[in-house]
Amino acid sequence: MIYLSRLRTPLIIINFKTYHQATGEKGLELAKTAEKVGQETDVSIGLSPQATNLTTIADLVDIPVFAQHIDPIPAGSFTGHILAESVKSAGAIGTLINHSERQLKLVHIDKTIRRARETDLVSVVCANNPEVSAAVAALTPDMLAVEPPELIGTGIPVSKAKPEVVSGTVDRVKEVNPQITVLCGAGISQGEDVRAALKLGTEGILVASAVVKAKDPYKVLVDFAQAAAEA
Amino acid sequence: MIYLSRLRTPLIIINFKTYHQATGEKGLELAKTAEKVGQETDVSIGLSPQATNLTTIADLVDIPVFAQHIDPIPAGSFTGHILAESVKSAGAIGTLINHSERQLKLVHIDKTIRRARETDLVSVVCANNPEVSAAVAALTPDMLAVEPPELIGTGIPVSKAKPEVVSGTVDRVKEVNPQITVLCGAGISQGEDVRAALKLGTEGILVASAVVKAKDPYKVLVDFAQAAAEA
Amino acid sequence: MIYLSRLRTPLIIINFKTYHQATGEKGLELAKTAEKVGQETDVSIGLSPQATNLTTIADLVDIPVFAQHIDPIPAGSFTGHILAESVKSAGAIGTLINHSERQLKLVHIDKTIRRARETDLVSVVCANNPEVSAAVAALTPDMLAVEPPELIGTGIPVSKAKPEVVSGTVDRVKEVNPQITVLCGAGISQGEDVRAALKLGTEGILVASAVVKAKDPYKVLVDFAQAAAEA
Amino acid sequence: MIYLSRLRTPLIIINFKTYHQATGEKGLELAKTAEKVGQETDVSIGLSPQATNLTTIADLVDIPVFAQHIDPIPAGSFTGHILAESVKSAGAIGTLINHSERQLKLVHIDKTIRRARETDLVSVVCANNPEVSAAVAALTPDMLAVEPPELIGTGIPVSKAKPEVVSGTVDRVKEVNPQITVLCGAGISQGEDVRAALKLGTEGILVASAVVKAKDPYKVLVDFAQAAAEA
Repeated sequence: MIYLSRLRTPLIIINFKTYHQATGEKGLELAKTAEKVGQETDVSIGLSPQATNLTTIADLVDIPVFAQHIDPIPAGSFTGHILAESVKSAGAIGTLINHSERQLKLVHIDKTIRRARETDLVSVVCANNPEVSAAVAALTPDMLAVEPPELIGTGIPVSKAKPEVVSGTVDRVKEVNPQITVLCGAGISQGEDVRAALKLGTEGILVASAVVKAKDPYKVLVDFAQAAAEA
Repeated sequence: MIYLSRLRTPLIIINFKTYHQATGEKGLELAKTAEKVGQETDVSIGLSPQATNLTTIADLVDIPVFAQHIDPIPAGSFTGHILAESVKSAGAIGTLINHSERQLKLVHIDKTIRRARETDLVSVVCANNPEVSAAVAALTPDMLAVEPPELIGTGIPVSKAKPEVVSGTVDRVKEVNPQITVLCGAGISQGEDVRAALKLGTEGILVASAVVKAKDPYKVLVDFAQAAAEA
Repeated sequence: MIYLSRLRTPLIIINFKTYHQATGEKGLELAKTAEKVGQETDVSIGLSPQATNLTTIADLVDIPVFAQHIDPIPAGSFTGHILAESVKSAGAIGTLINHSERQLKLVHIDKTIRRARETDLVSVVCANNPEVSAAVAALTPDMLAVEPPELIGTGIPVSKAKPEVVSGTVDRVKEVNPQITVLCGAGISQGEDVRAALKLGTEGILVASAVVKAKDPYKVLVDFAQAAAEA
Repeated sequence: MIYLSRLRTPLIIINFKTYHQATGEKGLELAKTAEKVGQETDVSIGLSPQATNLTTIADLVDIPVFAQHIDPIPAGSFTGHILAESVKSAGAIGTLINHSERQLKLVHIDKTIRRARETDLVSVVCANNPEVSAAVAALTPDMLAVEPPELIGTGIPVSKAKPEVVSGTVDRVKEVNPQITVLCGAGISQGEDVRAALKLGTEGILVASAVVKAKDPYKVLVDFAQAAAEA
């Protein structure tokens, strides 16, 4: 798949959430910053902007763009839903699924991964612990991001607070399916957290507040990307 | 408010849902068609495209654009949610709320209407019967669209099948708050259905499949708009 | 209706939630205590135990028993749901609906109230503010309990912290339908809170932790009941 | 565990759902019938009545009783929820989890299985296809019931319509964890369907309408139990 080839590891995905620092015009600036750091450091950096910004950002920058969510539905009578095909036609190359702030029923995770596959979107499914990660792995997503929800936004990296969650996830997931790329999320705030995450066997990070809410997102991202490049 | 002034009644809102006929490029064409009919007939026609298309369509056409849904959240840590401010900055002037295909908890309808008000978005809340409509009216939305869900997409207009639902809704809503504009949805497929809906006291229609899935959306819309203009 | 006649006001309803102090045998003891206080003070005290305890408690005590929740469904293929008829046949005379810890979609509140009416169950619908209360009132429940969720379990009574929420709710509800009995919940922990709630125009209280988690529930309930009797 | 020893395989579990034929007094009769057939045929038959009937039925009959659902919560402030401890103290020995009519988020399935384990309840998790079954297996429930939802209540047995779903589920689940007992649900209506299900490698069935809605539940159950005994 052409998209996966653009997604070299180590990979950094920036989740814009609905932070006001990533809404509207500010989201565009942040996207440009991420593109710049990617070019300068030659590290693969992806973005996950809000649905309303997908088209604009995918047009603006030449780096991989992910939706934050798609619904497990086909085209049809589904008001207020996010259709895989719409996300694709907006220029996204993949989508987050089951983020801890947008959790899905198990059968919907299965259907959503299938919808992503049908529309050639890279699926990045979030999970909160090694057992749930192993369950997700059985559904064969392209990538899995492990994020203990209690650490999200805290600045306490899971790689430090609960390294066994990260390494346990890598083990369990690879046992089910070695093809699945494992990312590490939750609490990453410095380059050394990126290094620790990669050392534990993950192939990239999913980050949000540390970049989006930073006074100087460029500086933080460079720090992250250099740590990733060294790994 | 400048937006409400652009929303003259009778008003026709076209809900794009996630129909493939309204996804990506096709959505843009449909938007141009709606704008053209609005100019030719001088009837106020609004659009409710998918979130991923909001910006593009709001940039493309000079008619009112509505989101299909916003979440009852402030800016912040809400992955995969639709933020009122994002919808606003995408160029939408309003939003559908609580469509029967995207139903909300009561307290979330209250919060979502407040979020719309805070961000100067026109709130169009859907309801399924006169009692629920009266309940919604107590929350003071700008507009209310009554749609018995069992008639949606059937081509059987509520104005014919259950006129008492439409007139009952108008009565109950105006009793609570005469400022709220009442629209009629569900099953409208011809100009005469538009006429019937307006005769029952509504001030516009919310329509989806009859326009979006039409072989010739232009023709259907002209029929609807002329019926509305005569009323 | 025979049941409403047993529900004299001022009314005290004790919500057992899933507190371990109200689970299994302990729930039965608490029910006996409530019955005893009701007899001694001649104040109407109702209970809302867990679904699994409904039958046993309704058999054990001769005071009104309410379910904590029923689902908006008819008899049929609904695994894991709470059927109005089951609750009725267990001996309950009513049900809480839409408690802030078990919130429902607006259309489901409407359907659940209808199901309660069809099965002669007294409906006690919870709401968080005067606007939502007015919305609920339009659906014609028998009773409404106003509880700002941020005060639940705090020991800070809404009657003191936000008296305008209580009096505003009474005003809005009675305006829509003077037949609806208004109860006050959230943060009530002493007799004077009961008095304050009744002074603001409510006709009873919905209480949980202050009684269930009390060292001496008998003592707390007597305090509440005497305050109610004086009112 | 003492409970699992009472649950000999082949096992038949009858899901009472909220059928009126299994509500109140009728539920008790059905439970007595099931107990009788179990004694006569020496086949292990379990029941899953409504929450409001759990205590009464567990007291009445000497066969294994399962809840239809428990919530992923500890004891505490959870109005209208089903607490594992309550179900246990009502006399249930296990619980269904994630039935297709009561589906859960993935993380909640994980938590609910943990809650069942903590309270010594046998967990019977439902799944709709082999992939989802493999995912569930990673969470280590005691039993798994595979039921393609489109066949539930149809009288078309999955063992005939989609035998590969049944055998595929057995293969995938046993590969993850050979300790997990696999049951077959959806569309079973005759003894030969039971035989077919067991032949495909399952160790029992989960059945509802075919027994509960039968004119003569005794006769149907004897047919099922004899087929199971022969296997």
